[in-house]
Amino acid sequence: MKFKAEIDVMPLDALLDPQGKAVTSSMKNIGLSMIEGVRIGRHIRLFVEAGSKSDAESKVDEACKKLLANQIMETYVFTVEEA
Amino acid sequence: MKFKAEIDVMPLDALLDPQGKAVTSSMKNIGLSMIEGVRIGRHIRLFVEAGSKSDAESKVDEACKKLLANQIMETYVFTVEEA
Repeated sequence: MKFKAEIDVMPLDALLDPQGKAVTSSMKNIGLSMIEGVRIGRHIRLFVEAGSKSDAESKVDEACKKLLANQIMETYVFTVEEA
Repeated sequence: MKFKAEIDVMPLDALLDPQGKAVTSSMKNIGLSMIEGVRIGRHIRLFVEAGSKSDAESKVDEACKKLLANQIMETYVFTVEEA
């Protein structure tokens, strides 16, 4: 079966996010000063061929740990559903 | 009231995504050949001060259009919930 995974990789809350800070400042300049606390990470969409949903989840988790997220600086969450 | 928005900005399906292609190839090299079709975009989390949920949604939509997404090359979706 084919499964679709949606993964969010975000900088850890304890770390500075300079790109997010820059965007927060820019919001004020374009008249959107009610927006604050912007943090920017990555969104990854992929497809997995697997026998079951739990099998697909373990493959996605392995991909996150090995390649997609740097766990020293980032945290990840994902959802898996049948494609 | 304070609302939290979670925004996904992804490259349009019609466009190449070289970063995603590179990651798809790398999956094969680390023994995860069952993973394919990787596409990589941005995930943005932010907070909005607004009177109502629909007001917050319109501010987030304005931020996406003006600053966060390039609508020529990217598409965006977001969810807003009370923080």
